[in-house]
Amino acid sequence: MFRLIISCADRLGIIADVSGFITGHGGNIVEASQYHDSSTGMFHMRYVLDPKNLPMDANEFRERFIPIAQRYGMQWHLTDASTPRKVLIMVSKLDHCLADLLYRWKCGDMAFDIPCVISNHDDLNEMVSWHNIPYFHVPVPKSAAGKEEAFQKTCELIDKYSPDTIVLARYMQILPPWMCEQYPNQVINIHHSFLPSFMGAKPYHQAQQRGVKLTGATCHYVTSDLDAGPIIEQDVTRISHYDSVQDIVRKGKDVEAQVLAQGLRNHLEDRVLVHNNKTIVFS
Amino acid sequence: MFRLIISCADRLGIIADVSGFITGHGGNIVEASQYHDSSTGMFHMRYVLDPKNLPMDANEFRERFIPIAQRYGMQWHLTDASTPRKVLIMVSKLDHCLADLLYRWKCGDMAFDIPCVISNHDDLNEMVSWHNIPYFHVPVPKSAAGKEEAFQKTCELIDKYSPDTIVLARYMQILPPWMCEQYPNQVINIHHSFLPSFMGAKPYHQAQQRGVKLTGATCHYVTSDLDAGPIIEQDVTRISHYDSVQDIVRKGKDVEAQVLAQGLRNHLEDRVLVHNNKTIVFS
Amino acid sequence: MFRLIISCADRLGIIADVSGFITGHGGNIVEASQYHDSSTGMFHMRYVLDPKNLPMDANEFRERFIPIAQRYGMQWHLTDASTPRKVLIMVSKLDHCLADLLYRWKCGDMAFDIPCVISNHDDLNEMVSWHNIPYFHVPVPKSAAGKEEAFQKTCELIDKYSPDTIVLARYMQILPPWMCEQYPNQVINIHHSFLPSFMGAKPYHQAQQRGVKLTGATCHYVTSDLDAGPIIEQDVTRISHYDSVQDIVRKGKDVEAQVLAQGLRNHLEDRVLVHNNKTIVFS
Amino acid sequence: MFRLIISCADRLGIIADVSGFITGHGGNIVEASQYHDSSTGMFHMRYVLDPKNLPMDANEFRERFIPIAQRYGMQWHLTDASTPRKVLIMVSKLDHCLADLLYRWKCGDMAFDIPCVISNHDDLNEMVSWHNIPYFHVPVPKSAAGKEEAFQKTCELIDKYSPDTIVLARYMQILPPWMCEQYPNQVINIHHSFLPSFMGAKPYHQAQQRGVKLTGATCHYVTSDLDAGPIIEQDVTRISHYDSVQDIVRKGKDVEAQVLAQGLRNHLEDRVLVHNNKTIVFS
Repeated sequence: MFRLIISCADRLGIIADVSGFITGHGGNIVEASQYHDSSTGMFHMRYVLDPKNLPMDANEFRERFIPIAQRYGMQWHLTDASTPRKVLIMVSKLDHCLADLLYRWKCGDMAFDIPCVISNHDDLNEMVSWHNIPYFHVPVPKSAAGKEEAFQKTCELIDKYSPDTIVLARYMQILPPWMCEQYPNQVINIHHSFLPSFMGAKPYHQAQQRGVKLTGATCHYVTSDLDAGPIIEQDVTRISHYDSVQDIVRKGKDVEAQVLAQGLRNHLEDRVLVHNNKTIVFS
Repeated sequence: MFRLIISCADRLGIIADVSGFITGHGGNIVEASQYHDSSTGMFHMRYVLDPKNLPMDANEFRERFIPIAQRYGMQWHLTDASTPRKVLIMVSKLDHCLADLLYRWKCGDMAFDIPCVISNHDDLNEMVSWHNIPYFHVPVPKSAAGKEEAFQKTCELIDKYSPDTIVLARYMQILPPWMCEQYPNQVINIHHSFLPSFMGAKPYHQAQQRGVKLTGATCHYVTSDLDAGPIIEQDVTRISHYDSVQDIVRKGKDVEAQVLAQGLRNHLEDRVLVHNNKTIVFS
Repeated sequence: MFRLIISCADRLGIIADVSGFITGHGGNIVEASQYHDSSTGMFHMRYVLDPKNLPMDANEFRERFIPIAQRYGMQWHLTDASTPRKVLIMVSKLDHCLADLLYRWKCGDMAFDIPCVISNHDDLNEMVSWHNIPYFHVPVPKSAAGKEEAFQKTCELIDKYSPDTIVLARYMQILPPWMCEQYPNQVINIHHSFLPSFMGAKPYHQAQQRGVKLTGATCHYVTSDLDAGPIIEQDVTRISHYDSVQDIVRKGKDVEAQVLAQGLRNHLEDRVLVHNNKTIVFS
Repeated sequence: MFRLIISCADRLGIIADVSGFITGHGGNIVEASQYHDSSTGMFHMRYVLDPKNLPMDANEFRERFIPIAQRYGMQWHLTDASTPRKVLIMVSKLDHCLADLLYRWKCGDMAFDIPCVISNHDDLNEMVSWHNIPYFHVPVPKSAAGKEEAFQKTCELIDKYSPDTIVLARYMQILPPWMCEQYPNQVINIHHSFLPSFMGAKPYHQAQQRGVKLTGATCHYVTSDLDAGPIIEQDVTRISHYDSVQDIVRKGKDVEAQVLAQGLRNHLEDRVLVHNNKTIVFS
């Protein structure tokens, strides 16, 4: 299947022109989502096409589509769902999100490849290596210069493996702004609170301290503004006074893994569009 | 706004033709939902159009659209969202769903009119009359002949008020098959269990007896097959061994009112299509 | 039933002494909840007793229990569940929480009396008066002096009706600190966000702006620290990019009413204990 | 910690006598749950004691407690939480519940040992063996005699490893009645529907066929009455018309793993009591 993702200023005729182009060439639209955002005047759409009867491949489609895209000033891209995305995973010591992603990758429930895992610790090497996935230990020192060097090295690895997406699966370091800007809407983080509650460090401690009755997790794109990037997915689970910080951590882990998996799935299926620091999720 | 609802066998070009027709006449599509059901080969769609620049009213639209509809063998209808639907409500003695609907009607959060309320008891007369809505007490005797007569009288009232939709808001009588067939996909019932669990009478007693950990409610279209009509909406709430039948009833009431309101809202906004005893809900 | 609520420093023998006192006098314990808070060293308990075979009434129980209470330095109280609590409700113009509470009061699903409703507007007078409940319109001017006078007058009404609990059912004014302190753990507010997210004004606008995927409501005791009092109950509901502020408001209303009702129910059943600005909820 | 679990006919003085016995010997009660079931006249309790200051070990406690137990005709047991339970896992080919349990076991979030895994297929041997846990492949033929022999062999393995609990983690065979009766309230199954909906085979197909809006999972004790044993835990997740059977299977897997883990956790912490084919879960 092909997926055609479009954002542009809303105008009469977009759907007719786009669907006309596709079906005029024999393409069958099997999923269609549109969103007319009256607050911004923007139009967003996602089409899934069966290219079986199209007399062109993805590249030719992209070329021939240019006139329509230019007519409406579209931001757009076409992806081929038959090519699994490359998802590079970054972790520290906590393994629950990594274990969950590795399981989903291994059982094939989510279609993606993992070119390598990068960590600032060596703890999860064995788990990753058992899956025959390269594991790189890039320590992140406390000094500013050391950090800078570590992230340079990290980016070299990233460039070498050229992933489509980078997942921070409880990677406990803050990426430098220049790195966030290098991969816009490509770096996905899982934050262990229901943002914007409890931004920053130790959200479970903050939650226990405040006495909230639900704890949550937030999957979002990373921007240079810490914990303030576009939110892809969130969920919560019930806690009570009986729960110590340790209990909240344990309950939170399940939510984190679920929310990250759901957010990543939507991202990989091109269901997530970003506009004005907010997401449109065609789910 | 106009809402155009279409179901037909899936073929190339439907979206292009329909959207081309609309925008070719200056109509602006502001919401669009499509579903290609690969298991049945059917295509279902719901378009919301801004008719401001259309050079025709709803009736003329309907006429001019006929050629396209015939080309694809569509089952379709166009509704005008500016005309609120008429929802006739039927109740017995329990008032929680009725009170909820009356509140939503009164505060304007849901756009519909209530031409009248019909009940087999007189208990809720005062509540309804305070809202200046006609209330008809049509007792339903136990004898087959008495029942038949009561439902004939009910249908006379229905025909007089010609509602678009009939809501059984905990109406504790079983409609005769002939009556179910007279209003296909127009009669909405709220059943106080998570169907197909606990069909029939006293589902909360059954739930308590079985020791389930969640109790639910189901909003569905009424068919002549009791509690087996197409499901529009369902939800559940947590219960435990501490809950007596009375507690389950109380917790269930909140879920029933919420599920009925949500199901009815989807129905009134033309979001619910029925095919093969199942619903497509474009929410 | 009697309800015995106790908080004290944890020590050996409390349960044995308390339960021994009760059953030694023929009282039957029908519900028992205890919480040993290892982080504070405190012990909290709630017993529900059937007093049928007790040779004393509530007042005599209170007197005879003093020695045990003193032995352990208890903070405690005994309430008689057969006497419904008096709940004074304060509102502004929004009626969804008020309507929900009035319905629950009227149908008897929650046992409480409503001595009167106080509002800074006259809009909800008719709804309240139909229930034969006194309604007082106490406007709150913008000037500091005017505000002070209005709250003085409000407190006079409160003192006249001597409620057990005051519910701010979307009362859009901030109570002055002296008033908050006058009724500790007696004033319950419903805030229309999942606190501590979106404190202060217009939380639904903030939620829409931030692009969160869930919106919530928080029921809490009012303290002089705005929106920072002990949380009694919280819940959330799913929203998406399709939801305008108006949609979020509408979806939020249902959650607000549900969360307030659940929080108030727990409060009225003496299930909520407060320690260090956090609640223990024996649910 | 010690856990004392008691069920008996409700009578005056149980709490006082039991708590008096414990604290009279210097034991500190750190968690206490009680349930007076007015419908059956039964009393159920669970105490967690810190035995640090008790002048006796678990065995001596059990002996000295006998007089109280006999006075009230108690069904009771005392467990020592410091000894992890032995949980034997049985699987077929599906690995999602097994993978989840292995992860929770490995990371130590749930305290239990896995003496061995038994399967009627060899598919999951590698996954189990990587965790250094013995894996036994006991094929179950279709013939009645073959089945009988297979289950005899299974029971020999069970007896050899003497687990406290047997978990059927999507073990696709029906245990013979004699085997169910041999391990009462010790065999835990995960059923992939919200029971009693969709009992028997292929519940996800049934769910898709019926068009339900939520799919669920049920963790229950196995009895000789298929899918009708006491329910320990249940949960659901939302599905829609977009979901094929394959999608429902995928969404259901997450719920199954979560529900099984939660049910097993409650079981291992002695929070689950069974009476009249229903559970009391002190959570």
